[in-house]
Amino acid sequence: MRLDGRKPDQLRPLTLIPGFISSADGSVLIQCGQTRVICTAMVEEKVPPFLEGKDQGWVTAEYAMLPGSTRTRKARGGSKPDGRGVEIQRLIGRSLRAAVDLQKLGPRTITLDCDVIEADGGTRTASISGAYVALALCCDKLLRQGLVQENPVIHQVAAVSVGKVEDIAVLDLNYPEDARAQVDMNVVMNERGDFIELQGTGEHDTFNEADLQAFLRLAKLGIKEIMAAQTAACTETNAQEG
Amino acid sequence: MRLDGRKPDQLRPLTLIPGFISSADGSVLIQCGQTRVICTAMVEEKVPPFLEGKDQGWVTAEYAMLPGSTRTRKARGGSKPDGRGVEIQRLIGRSLRAAVDLQKLGPRTITLDCDVIEADGGTRTASISGAYVALALCCDKLLRQGLVQENPVIHQVAAVSVGKVEDIAVLDLNYPEDARAQVDMNVVMNERGDFIELQGTGEHDTFNEADLQAFLRLAKLGIKEIMAAQTAACTETNAQEG
Amino acid sequence: MRLDGRKPDQLRPLTLIPGFISSADGSVLIQCGQTRVICTAMVEEKVPPFLEGKDQGWVTAEYAMLPGSTRTRKARGGSKPDGRGVEIQRLIGRSLRAAVDLQKLGPRTITLDCDVIEADGGTRTASISGAYVALALCCDKLLRQGLVQENPVIHQVAAVSVGKVEDIAVLDLNYPEDARAQVDMNVVMNERGDFIELQGTGEHDTFNEADLQAFLRLAKLGIKEIMAAQTAACTETNAQEG
Amino acid sequence: MRLDGRKPDQLRPLTLIPGFISSADGSVLIQCGQTRVICTAMVEEKVPPFLEGKDQGWVTAEYAMLPGSTRTRKARGGSKPDGRGVEIQRLIGRSLRAAVDLQKLGPRTITLDCDVIEADGGTRTASISGAYVALALCCDKLLRQGLVQENPVIHQVAAVSVGKVEDIAVLDLNYPEDARAQVDMNVVMNERGDFIELQGTGEHDTFNEADLQAFLRLAKLGIKEIMAAQTAACTETNAQEG
Amino acid sequence: MRLDGRKPDQLRPLTLIPGFISSADGSVLIQCGQTRVICTAMVEEKVPPFLEGKDQGWVTAEYAMLPGSTRTRKARGGSKPDGRGVEIQRLIGRSLRAAVDLQKLGPRTITLDCDVIEADGGTRTASISGAYVALALCCDKLLRQGLVQENPVIHQVAAVSVGKVEDIAVLDLNYPEDARAQVDMNVVMNERGDFIELQGTGEHDTFNEADLQAFLRLAKLGIKEIMAAQTAACTETNAQEG
Amino acid sequence: MRLDGRKPDQLRPLTLIPGFISSADGSVLIQCGQTRVICTAMVEEKVPPFLEGKDQGWVTAEYAMLPGSTRTRKARGGSKPDGRGVEIQRLIGRSLRAAVDLQKLGPRTITLDCDVIEADGGTRTASISGAYVALALCCDKLLRQGLVQENPVIHQVAAVSVGKVEDIAVLDLNYPEDARAQVDMNVVMNERGDFIELQGTGEHDTFNEADLQAFLRLAKLGIKEIMAAQTAACTETNAQEG
Repeated sequence: MRLDGRKPDQLRPLTLIPGFISSADGSVLIQCGQTRVICTAMVEEKVPPFLEGKDQGWVTAEYAMLPGSTRTRKARGGSKPDGRGVEIQRLIGRSLRAAVDLQKLGPRTITLDCDVIEADGGTRTASISGAYVALALCCDKLLRQGLVQENPVIHQVAAVSVGKVEDIAVLDLNYPEDARAQVDMNVVMNERGDFIELQGTGEHDTFNEADLQAFLRLAKLGIKEIMAAQTAACTETNAQEG
Repeated sequence: MRLDGRKPDQLRPLTLIPGFISSADGSVLIQCGQTRVICTAMVEEKVPPFLEGKDQGWVTAEYAMLPGSTRTRKARGGSKPDGRGVEIQRLIGRSLRAAVDLQKLGPRTITLDCDVIEADGGTRTASISGAYVALALCCDKLLRQGLVQENPVIHQVAAVSVGKVEDIAVLDLNYPEDARAQVDMNVVMNERGDFIELQGTGEHDTFNEADLQAFLRLAKLGIKEIMAAQTAACTETNAQEG
Repeated sequence: MRLDGRKPDQLRPLTLIPGFISSADGSVLIQCGQTRVICTAMVEEKVPPFLEGKDQGWVTAEYAMLPGSTRTRKARGGSKPDGRGVEIQRLIGRSLRAAVDLQKLGPRTITLDCDVIEADGGTRTASISGAYVALALCCDKLLRQGLVQENPVIHQVAAVSVGKVEDIAVLDLNYPEDARAQVDMNVVMNERGDFIELQGTGEHDTFNEADLQAFLRLAKLGIKEIMAAQTAACTETNAQEG
Repeated sequence: MRLDGRKPDQLRPLTLIPGFISSADGSVLIQCGQTRVICTAMVEEKVPPFLEGKDQGWVTAEYAMLPGSTRTRKARGGSKPDGRGVEIQRLIGRSLRAAVDLQKLGPRTITLDCDVIEADGGTRTASISGAYVALALCCDKLLRQGLVQENPVIHQVAAVSVGKVEDIAVLDLNYPEDARAQVDMNVVMNERGDFIELQGTGEHDTFNEADLQAFLRLAKLGIKEIMAAQTAACTETNAQEG
Repeated sequence: MRLDGRKPDQLRPLTLIPGFISSADGSVLIQCGQTRVICTAMVEEKVPPFLEGKDQGWVTAEYAMLPGSTRTRKARGGSKPDGRGVEIQRLIGRSLRAAVDLQKLGPRTITLDCDVIEADGGTRTASISGAYVALALCCDKLLRQGLVQENPVIHQVAAVSVGKVEDIAVLDLNYPEDARAQVDMNVVMNERGDFIELQGTGEHDTFNEADLQAFLRLAKLGIKEIMAAQTAACTETNAQEG
Repeated sequence: MRLDGRKPDQLRPLTLIPGFISSADGSVLIQCGQTRVICTAMVEEKVPPFLEGKDQGWVTAEYAMLPGSTRTRKARGGSKPDGRGVEIQRLIGRSLRAAVDLQKLGPRTITLDCDVIEADGGTRTASISGAYVALALCCDKLLRQGLVQENPVIHQVAAVSVGKVEDIAVLDLNYPEDARAQVDMNVVMNERGDFIELQGTGEHDTFNEADLQAFLRLAKLGIKEIMAAQTAACTETNAQEG
């Protein structure tokens, strides 16, 4: 029995509100319990310098927390780079590039902005799962506009955290669990159940192969459920647009 | 007849969702037509260096736009300071300090963060009107917690933009109007109808005293209506908390 | 009777030394009582990116205070942006663009640098009034050099501060008055008496429409006198150059 | 058969030169094939603000590449933060904190600086393995100086990269292999074979559980060998010092 | 015969206007031909961290050029540090510390700000010679105020440039000479004719010992003349103050 | 008799290890007693903006100290520019440009990176003497590759420090001597014995012409010896490459 009454293999209540930001090319508000992230996808008709003339596109991500998203005000980034945020936005970018055929995208950049408006643990995995929806809706729009011929989205991507708390493997840690976790692992998968990223950290303790098996089993369960919610959100939106 | 069908003295539809961010000490989502701003108030039990030992508190503000809030992605601030944002956050801070008795607040700082999630003109005045609600809810909480003896909020503050578009004085400009406005004026008032700030700019044209009278008449009308909505939002929240 | 013996509607002694910096394309040392600002205008044969290919020029401004300009040394700007300075230089830029026909200027940029060498209140309005002289002398030079066909300066621009001190409306506040002012308003006008910018701030108090009328009456008087001094400075210089 | 003639489970030639920097409190030059990193440990008798008064120490890391360490000159960091470097130095810091009992260290900070002087793949894992030696030598010195009563180093830590290249799982990738790797995984372990960090990335491809098993088997082999070299380097130095 | 008609051993016309900035603790406008620098000395009652508790003061310098001081507008410093300016302000600081007994100064800092308002070569040596006057006037004021018991200024310091232009050794180069100089040397001396700093640079050519002798002879002549002007400026001011 | 037993005119033991960094176009590890600097030369096929279209190349330098190079950890540069480092890297760049015919180099840039791995005084002169070797080896490689027709290196350049310690003129100061030196002078010469740079500083004392003669005599002796070591290092390398 967990702090908030969940079973070890139970996700927090999950809600996806697609189209939350009407100015963006794709957007969603993802809510995993008290963790809430606005994810937007914005298209720019240019590529970074290292891709110029290579006839492919790029997908990148930025991650930030609003100052009021934590109980103690979080100062905005800016001149002082925040190492944790840099690490997270690189993870989001790599994960979502695994969803896309960059040739099919053509010479344009999609930037996925993940702005945490309330933080209660698991903001990086919520960002990845939400960014997928924003990206998919954005690519649907590119298709409708005739800017791409084929859908550049070739895989579905979702993420969840798992960890060991009081010697028990649990799924989708909230902040009180995360703060006391012995081990914390973020798992990013595609719709085939293959791994895109696996990041396990044992700062308070270490973990062995049996722990790892338990973590991966929970992660698969959770990601399957998240993917169902992603699919529903995208389908609903396309029904309205189509 | 205006671009969006409004009359010259008509506000855009206005919605205030108090308590939008549960981690913050006070918060609201303010929506003025397509312009949407998350305003949060956060308390820190310290004051800036220039007030140390002076037995009073401080109120300050920060303003930012999310990258997806405009049709063309807006790069995040950071190393390059954005002059417009600096100007706006100084205006918000000055305006809201006029609402508060800093002695009654005691030696603590309230930071008002205004994060624009969708921008369609009038983001600075929406930020001020929303920040007032976040500030008032935050001070109500300080009172309930017994951290202050008397409510530090001594005036109600709201703001609206007025301007001249196609030679007609209009209230609450949206972005298409703002872009073609000959004159743009932001008016901040308190509940007695006195001016806190008056900022008129005639970059495309100039204005005379007759224009000024017309602007101020419209601003008073608009601010009265906004104050009614602010009061409703605060009352509703306090009914729930109380 | 004011602190320095002036009447409420009396300007401080005003001196303009045109051509103070011989390396600049236009320059003046403006002295308003103890407030002294070096204003220079420099031409660059390029425009900012957002104007490329648009067949017009640009006028922009920068404002800074020398470290020795205040009784307590003022640290130089640099990595830490100074919000007040940003706000002021944006005001100067907007005000002076109202003096110029940017098409007539052609695809070049004039930068107006206002460096305060001694500060005793009213540095932003002194900067605007001085920057006009630097700009006008610079455009006279462009005409003499045949780089422009018609004079791009189409309006005269000057500024002055007004405010309420000890419940009396006064003109051209010095620093001791400014520090205790209930209300402070900066007014920028052209030669027709129309407003370009109007910025009133009531941080210590608020103001009503009667106050506003009193402020505007004083501002008109002051600006008329400043414009006479500007005209004399420009005429004298052109007599020497011509 | 690999590009450089190694077998899939074969490390590159490994050399550790302890005491390479005599001004540092602990140091080593680690060479893994053509990858060479100078690792130093420096003691400061203070802790970061968040640990003040908590009666424990801190271990942190910084990572940088010398401009001449790559075939194309790598610009120094500085005003533009380098996301990859931030990510790496956070990984090094977390990994080495798992080696230390921060209470036994007492209220001081050990900074582990890893400066890559030649880069040929695997610089982050070489940095971790080298940083362990610098840290251990530094703590031996603290013991000899009587600044700590018990050795704060409670675990041995080493790291290696594994990956999939041309569909084969291989150990300790050099740069040409890394550039074409389908999957890249960094594994950090302690002397008991438990995991401290596990970071697998499949940017060009994904990986499944069978791949994961193969990676972990190779990593164990490699880390065992690296730990033997670490032990030899520390023993040799202590024999000289003792 | 030089470009501007001077003899090889002739200084440019030199003017010193002491007390140019009345808000500063000491100040001068130094004019060497077309080169003009505002030098101010400001006292702060604190010392840098490395001198805390050491019962001595500190003298430091900052150097900047106004944007209009050169024919092509010079961008302000700030985020991009300007190497040349850093080098110059370190030279000014070291030179003026040689004028002062830091124990007699007591635990306070004098900052010497040298702001070039017009640049025509030799700005760093003009800054040193001017900064000495600002420093001396500032210390006279400290004495009059009773903040120091003895005058901390124990040496007179002045500087001049010398160089080789068209194979001739010349004194006090203006910008056209400096731009074509084969060798450029800055010499800082005290009133006894001893060297404080000697910086010779042969970027376009090299120099030998005979050249060096010729340079030093010219420098002595020039510095003697500058010191006479410094003394006159200080005496005149003290006569007025006394 | 000096602190470390050397005679006044004796260099510290000098070792040059050419080719120390195999990824660089030219490199050396220079060791002068306990002072050790890695110098690399890297070629980029472009020139800085101010040389575009001028048909010549550029040589520039960067200087940094590793955090572990001093007994007290030296924080890395970055956002806060380090004035001393800026001053040093400008000196290195100017000195080495005197070694090269920039026309013969063609439109490319050689960057000389000097990274101090251990600091015991004289790091700037060791950097210059080492940078010459890296530069010479780099130009030899350009010749072998046929990228230049003639060797751009037209002069040999080396540097040494001299100073006055306990009233005695000494050569090649180590850190304990440097810290107590009355006068410190850095001398850069070419193979003809002509001066390229001469920088004498008397922060703790001043110096006269007799001192200067003594310094220059010692510097010549030292530089002759350093040049012999440079020549040996280059010859040895070319024998291997050739």
